[in-house]
Amino acid sequence: MYQGGYTGKILRINLGSQTAKVEETPEPMANDFIGGAGFGIKLLFDEVKANTDPLGPDNKLIFASGPLSGTNVPCTSRMSVTSRSPLTGAVGMALSGGYFPVELKWAGYDAMIIEGKSEEPVYVSIKDGDVKFRSAKKLWGMKTTDTQQIIKNDLHDQNVRVACIGPAGENKIKIASIINEWRAVGRKGLGAVMGSKNLKAIAIRGTGKVAVADKEKLKAARKVFTEAMKESEVLYPVFANTGTPMVVDATSAIGIFPTRNYMTTGEYNAAETLGVEVQMTRNVGSEPCYGCPVGCSQLKLAKTGAYEGILTEGPEFETMYSYGGVTGVDNIDAVIAADRLADELGLDTISSGVSIAFAMELYEKGILTKEDTGGIELNFGNDQAMITILKQMAYRQGIGGLLADGTKAAAEKIGKGSEKYAMHVKGLELPAYDVRGAKAHGLNYATSYTGADHCRGYAFQEIFGIPVPYEVDRFSAEGKGKLTKWNQDIRTATTDAPGMCAFLFDMAVVGIAAQNTASLLEAVTGLTFTPDDILVAGERINNLARAFNVREGFTRADDTLPERILTEPLKGGASKGNYISRDELDLMLDEYYTARGWDVATGAPSREKLAELGIEYVADQLN
Amino acid sequence: MYQGGYTGKILRINLGSQTAKVEETPEPMANDFIGGAGFGIKLLFDEVKANTDPLGPDNKLIFASGPLSGTNVPCTSRMSVTSRSPLTGAVGMALSGGYFPVELKWAGYDAMIIEGKSEEPVYVSIKDGDVKFRSAKKLWGMKTTDTQQIIKNDLHDQNVRVACIGPAGENKIKIASIINEWRAVGRKGLGAVMGSKNLKAIAIRGTGKVAVADKEKLKAARKVFTEAMKESEVLYPVFANTGTPMVVDATSAIGIFPTRNYMTTGEYNAAETLGVEVQMTRNVGSEPCYGCPVGCSQLKLAKTGAYEGILTEGPEFETMYSYGGVTGVDNIDAVIAADRLADELGLDTISSGVSIAFAMELYEKGILTKEDTGGIELNFGNDQAMITILKQMAYRQGIGGLLADGTKAAAEKIGKGSEKYAMHVKGLELPAYDVRGAKAHGLNYATSYTGADHCRGYAFQEIFGIPVPYEVDRFSAEGKGKLTKWNQDIRTATTDAPGMCAFLFDMAVVGIAAQNTASLLEAVTGLTFTPDDILVAGERINNLARAFNVREGFTRADDTLPERILTEPLKGGASKGNYISRDELDLMLDEYYTARGWDVATGAPSREKLAELGIEYVADQLN
Repeated sequence: MYQGGYTGKILRINLGSQTAKVEETPEPMANDFIGGAGFGIKLLFDEVKANTDPLGPDNKLIFASGPLSGTNVPCTSRMSVTSRSPLTGAVGMALSGGYFPVELKWAGYDAMIIEGKSEEPVYVSIKDGDVKFRSAKKLWGMKTTDTQQIIKNDLHDQNVRVACIGPAGENKIKIASIINEWRAVGRKGLGAVMGSKNLKAIAIRGTGKVAVADKEKLKAARKVFTEAMKESEVLYPVFANTGTPMVVDATSAIGIFPTRNYMTTGEYNAAETLGVEVQMTRNVGSEPCYGCPVGCSQLKLAKTGAYEGILTEGPEFETMYSYGGVTGVDNIDAVIAADRLADELGLDTISSGVSIAFAMELYEKGILTKEDTGGIELNFGNDQAMITILKQMAYRQGIGGLLADGTKAAAEKIGKGSEKYAMHVKGLELPAYDVRGAKAHGLNYATSYTGADHCRGYAFQEIFGIPVPYEVDRFSAEGKGKLTKWNQDIRTATTDAPGMCAFLFDMAVVGIAAQNTASLLEAVTGLTFTPDDILVAGERINNLARAFNVREGFTRADDTLPERILTEPLKGGASKGNYISRDELDLMLDEYYTARGWDVATGAPSREKLAELGIEYVADQLN
Repeated sequence: MYQGGYTGKILRINLGSQTAKVEETPEPMANDFIGGAGFGIKLLFDEVKANTDPLGPDNKLIFASGPLSGTNVPCTSRMSVTSRSPLTGAVGMALSGGYFPVELKWAGYDAMIIEGKSEEPVYVSIKDGDVKFRSAKKLWGMKTTDTQQIIKNDLHDQNVRVACIGPAGENKIKIASIINEWRAVGRKGLGAVMGSKNLKAIAIRGTGKVAVADKEKLKAARKVFTEAMKESEVLYPVFANTGTPMVVDATSAIGIFPTRNYMTTGEYNAAETLGVEVQMTRNVGSEPCYGCPVGCSQLKLAKTGAYEGILTEGPEFETMYSYGGVTGVDNIDAVIAADRLADELGLDTISSGVSIAFAMELYEKGILTKEDTGGIELNFGNDQAMITILKQMAYRQGIGGLLADGTKAAAEKIGKGSEKYAMHVKGLELPAYDVRGAKAHGLNYATSYTGADHCRGYAFQEIFGIPVPYEVDRFSAEGKGKLTKWNQDIRTATTDAPGMCAFLFDMAVVGIAAQNTASLLEAVTGLTFTPDDILVAGERINNLARAFNVREGFTRADDTLPERILTEPLKGGASKGNYISRDELDLMLDEYYTARGWDVATGAPSREKLAELGIEYVADQLN
């Protein structure tokens, strides 16, 4: 019996039969996979068979908060959404915050599995045990802000929280996001999975509480945690005021903020036009997630030209990169406008921006012509063109239609050697951070189970110079295998699974993360978790996710980086001259697979490793 | 002591001192002015001295619901907002529905008087007796939907209802509106008055109830009312499904739907491109006001081209005219997009559309050139130009800046005889209905205390052929004076003052309106109201409003119509050949002043009439 943290219930929603049932959360799953992304990946591996069409009725979409979500532990309103990604074919797992994650817990569920496909557009409304299927025929085509408001009105309840898709998800754009309020489940095309199921939205409200096993113990653990937060030199003093866009300055300073589709020459200093000083002139307040005393989420209001009066949350650092640096757009107000537009349409800001930057380079190289673009002058820096194409993407129109499923699909259609300018791994567009100047970060992009993903094994050692667990040289390939394994496992186990904001990890508890997570989990759940258990759970989840990908046919050959990263030295800035050679990548992969106990030739988890992690059954499905 | 309907309290908010106090609603005011617009005009006349700058701190803004608002009488969530209009200099009174009006009552107030000017942007939050002044510095510049959501988040209360201004109001555009949810206090520039006071928004929530004096009596009165609603051949069978835009068809059929700035040739049949059949292809649901079983408010979603995915409420009939017919735009999706944009910017749809149509005619006539428009090809039917200029208006940019304060101000700036194409009365742009084919409606435009206003004395006899109180010939000028007086008085007394939706009057109780209102008011308030009392109250309110205007210097000479209406016969359609000659206007005015007991030479209320109505004190201020 669960004592706290877990509700012990999983809600299974079948859209085909329009039925809902409640199942028990298996107790071993709590111990072994913690929750959140751990649950998502466990359920995905077990329930979604190999070669399932990501946009077919047999794919599933698993929402899961963590055991800490919904308690009074700060910064724990987080959830994972897991599916087979239509963009990559690999595990599609993305995280989001806001209020939806705690409502899911308060409604009584550790996780929610959505399966099947509705014949007609629907939305699901959940209030505690009451699950209803409601027609979304009239909502089909609406943008995300309107959708959320109309659903609140429809339910006569302004207090529900709504996760929904926009036109992009409806049109099964493979870079479509899921939006709830100012938050996005942004990457890997999970919005398209919702669209493929004719599921416009999920509205949820919970009136329950999450039990805590040992309140005194939690008080103590919480104190250690909040004291660590207070001691951080970054969290409250800087991050609370500026949010993630401060990273524009930090990465520009070390020469790894990519500009112009990674042709980065160093002549264009993004920090001057998009950095914190400029951003703060647009700042109009903060919209924290539930229970967050920091409030990194910053609202910005565009001030000039055609963009005047457009409000957005963020744009987060990644979006400053995707609609700013990488497209060569240096107009902060255009970035604000594009960000809001993408959220309204339900498009991933990273993948959409990088796809447009890709097209810009092809246009400048003459591989795409004005005929291809429908008359748009698609040069770097053309903010109006960017915004026009963003809109086209959501509706598969014009040149936007060509780019709508990301750079990999676009390059396949375009041919003419364009693939070498396509900045993706496994089909997922590169987030910010030019990994030619941060090689462990590059190895993470190459090996992360979701494709090029900064959220899986963020190499803060290289980017911020934080010497945990040890100091590293960001330009060196050596020693990065073991580091990347550690980065991936600890991040998974201390943030993605328990339902904890990753920024807390980076900025407050990086040195004590495993201990902190173990203490909080023990206090909240009443189960036993040592710091080592935490790291092993992280490793288990990463192995299972890798196994899912192997089962889908992914091999070492897929653990690679875009050709530009592997062949073109950075032309300017503080990382000038660096790149990751193929030899370096191979060295890092060898080290990484070895550290992981995986087959160095194939990149597949060994039976021994899987057995050691208590999931030997998985090995039977890999051959 | 008040027994029901009235809360007996008026909230006075001073923005200069940031203080709020509660005053008693004077009991005679209830009997004599009923509430709503009646209270607004009484308070305006008494508190806002002659020659007060409409955009100065001495102007006031009076929100008032009616005694029926907040009770269980259907369709009574209505409020008036009254001020000296910056657009006309006359009484600025406009009505709105939604939920805000009932919240005001539930919070405990019959009316709310806003006076003074805040030094810095503020918003006022009201929860019952708790009134707070909160900084709106960060909200300044935001569009209206965002403003409302951010305020809800700021107050941690998703259930407040927010009335706010957009950039247009902030920039004191004299055709700025006040927006609450899908509802607008649209006309006469009341949004600019809020802007001039540095008041971005008012957030309100009430938890009280409105008492009812005699519940049994109300039950009976309510039954008569709701039965009449059910018997209407229009209200539920048609109006509930289509809302106001059905009037496009009705007015097109009788040749009074104006097209191309009233150059209407009849060749362009608006019903074919903007009529009900087309509109229903965009319909995506209904958003009724509080307590309304009809739900005329229809949501529409644009489907094509650049407008795809844009949602709006309406566009109401008047907006189909202002962004459709009169600008020659025949693209329903462009009208939808323009409507949403105007609501987001906080611009009156009627005045802004008519002002753009005015500029279109000047452009086609060569009075405005491409140099004046900044390169915009401002021909009739250019929907993109319309949308560009709408946005410019809110920020006083380009040609939009020239048009931002309406046609009268624009004509004064442009000169070159442009005034004769400016379709306004007293500075207020004409609503739909070409009054050349509906002459009492024209007389109402000429004499209404707010300028050309379809909401004051709607001549349903001419437009829908309803023979109440008697049958009329819409092409005749004779007999329209008495009719217009009746139309104005009964509309004021049965809808604007008690807080009742005007559509109920037109469609359900037109024949029994005075009796119905008297019965409902007696039951709810416990005061005595005969049907005759109702009509006299309507007359009293209209006299007082007229007196306000006379005190501001308005005379018979201002009771006129645009030159085109007075000189150019309609060129096509079912009213072809008709116009209102100057002689006809004079005849109608003579009849009207006589019926009103006003001085025929000056149009001023006589001391005798004012004494008869119990407001002789007013006469002392008119000389």
